[in-house]
Amino acid sequence: MTDPTPVLVAHGALSRFCADCFEKLGLPPADAEWTASSVVWASLRGIESHGLNLMREYAERIRRGGIDPGSHYATVSESATTAIIEAAGGVGQVAGRRGMTLAVAKAAQAGVGIVGVRNSSHFGAAACYSVMAVEHNMIGLASTNAPPSMAPWGGKAPLLGTNPVSIAVPAGRNPPVVLDMATSASAWGKVFIAMRQGQKIPLNWALDRDGEPTDDPARAIDGGMIQPLGGYKGYGLSLIIDVLTGVLTGSSFANQIPAWDAKDQRQGCGHLLMAVRIDAFIPVDEFRSRMDQLISLIKNCPRASDSEPILLPGEIESGTEAERRAHGIPIHSTLQRELASLGQELKVAVPF
Amino acid sequence: MTDPTPVLVAHGALSRFCADCFEKLGLPPADAEWTASSVVWASLRGIESHGLNLMREYAERIRRGGIDPGSHYATVSESATTAIIEAAGGVGQVAGRRGMTLAVAKAAQAGVGIVGVRNSSHFGAAACYSVMAVEHNMIGLASTNAPPSMAPWGGKAPLLGTNPVSIAVPAGRNPPVVLDMATSASAWGKVFIAMRQGQKIPLNWALDRDGEPTDDPARAIDGGMIQPLGGYKGYGLSLIIDVLTGVLTGSSFANQIPAWDAKDQRQGCGHLLMAVRIDAFIPVDEFRSRMDQLISLIKNCPRASDSEPILLPGEIESGTEAERRAHGIPIHSTLQRELASLGQELKVAVPF
Repeated sequence: MTDPTPVLVAHGALSRFCADCFEKLGLPPADAEWTASSVVWASLRGIESHGLNLMREYAERIRRGGIDPGSHYATVSESATTAIIEAAGGVGQVAGRRGMTLAVAKAAQAGVGIVGVRNSSHFGAAACYSVMAVEHNMIGLASTNAPPSMAPWGGKAPLLGTNPVSIAVPAGRNPPVVLDMATSASAWGKVFIAMRQGQKIPLNWALDRDGEPTDDPARAIDGGMIQPLGGYKGYGLSLIIDVLTGVLTGSSFANQIPAWDAKDQRQGCGHLLMAVRIDAFIPVDEFRSRMDQLISLIKNCPRASDSEPILLPGEIESGTEAERRAHGIPIHSTLQRELASLGQELKVAVPF
Repeated sequence: MTDPTPVLVAHGALSRFCADCFEKLGLPPADAEWTASSVVWASLRGIESHGLNLMREYAERIRRGGIDPGSHYATVSESATTAIIEAAGGVGQVAGRRGMTLAVAKAAQAGVGIVGVRNSSHFGAAACYSVMAVEHNMIGLASTNAPPSMAPWGGKAPLLGTNPVSIAVPAGRNPPVVLDMATSASAWGKVFIAMRQGQKIPLNWALDRDGEPTDDPARAIDGGMIQPLGGYKGYGLSLIIDVLTGVLTGSSFANQIPAWDAKDQRQGCGHLLMAVRIDAFIPVDEFRSRMDQLISLIKNCPRASDSEPILLPGEIESGTEAERRAHGIPIHSTLQRELASLGQELKVAVPF
């Protein structure tokens, strides 16, 4: 369903708008600016589900006490290679950025840095943090747990989030390779779209409330669950991510994280941010040129269908980002209304 | 197809048999012993595809020059947290073990250790190395690239291996959680079984030689490919593992690794071994008890089917290992013949 009336808005103007909103919501100016740039970055990359579409959601959580806009993000334990940051219910984007900044600083000195963030909130697109390492000639990894929406394999109650992981790797003449994937077979958003369009969904996307695979999106939405990616393997990945982001950091895990619609409750999410210095292994130039070789091999692979290109992880997003940086971010009519009403409430002028 | 005549053989006797074989094949005694214990460990855990069934394969590769049994596995670069080991065509099991031993030693000092192994060979079950970290109160990760058997998403030529990753995590009163998964939707072994039994395979398991999904196992085997786990996400995971194990370590990657049946060629595989000290983040006792809490939540999840238990990653293997340590490893008649003829050739007495 393409929108007939999207307006194209410059990303800088949108960032200023979002930063002003976050400041009005109680974030310190620097935190407001970063959080805004993270939200707008997701929209620049075409990751609509984690971009401007969440502005209303974040605002409501802050207002209802689910997110503390003034948290201090204290580093509560630290070694040359590791740290734990206590977010104390703060903004996920601020905590995630601090985590990766610290991981990069540690990796610069020690070769590797791993920072756990505890008691945080939804941090947006995981790739926003993994790519921070790339400009330092490092490989970055970012991961988080999330409200439960999947059952363990064989179960019929939601215990695990769609716990995503992003790994970002620099290349040479090519853009960075940026994997960013949830450990679920699909996203709720796609199930809702299928329902609105009266279509069936593949049997491996969702379960009904009894834990049976269903191709009826309405049955999935009525108390059902999302299925893990590729069955039991995705369950295993999601579980291990919960271990690394929740159990290891001292955060909430599994169904200790409240459901997504409990907007007045602290989520207690945990994040893991890791940076690895490439030249601790091989010279950066050699690595970059080897990445270009790998990318060439992939791009030159014979295609199954002439009309379908072979893509690298993050390639679509890189292209969308270049396009939208140059020409603006399309804001469809529903989102225009959402942002306009948010601006009105907070007395911030919308940039369209 | 259960074998009517398996014999149960004690794992210690099988380890001695395999170690004697490897020594006759040219491995130094300590390397022979470790490689044997790694092969037998996979069989103890019920990972038949990576256990004793590979003895003939390894022997043939060593004899035909595909594996150098006398390699020295030199550490060619090193920092407090990182290292590269040059396996120079040596035995994957020996290289993998040295890699994880070094990663654990570095993590003991620095909190984290990451060791890349270059120019190695098939290293057996990835979990064999990740679990080495667990007894040191660390989380272990082991990964490797492999001969190409999957196309990039949208392609029709094999460029990526089923590149597995294993992550092992200690618990408290429960056995360790051990994820060990290939990034493919299925294994070739299962496709062959379906063909022999005249059954169709799910459409997301394999492609035919034109890159089209097929449910006919014969079409898959005739120049086709295995599909990545869950489509494009498994492709992305496999690619990133090739980056971390192949590109970053200075090893071969993508189709630079020769096909599995080129037994006289060095594989040039790369491995990545990583260990993370848990108490760099939270006290070990707290972590173990939190793991037990997570495991209880999972095991107590309401079941979709009363007859199907909910399992933790590695739970089946832990149970099989306990059973087989106590009562012996079942050796079916085909494997009996294979091991007997190998023993005869190498003048090593078989333990059954």
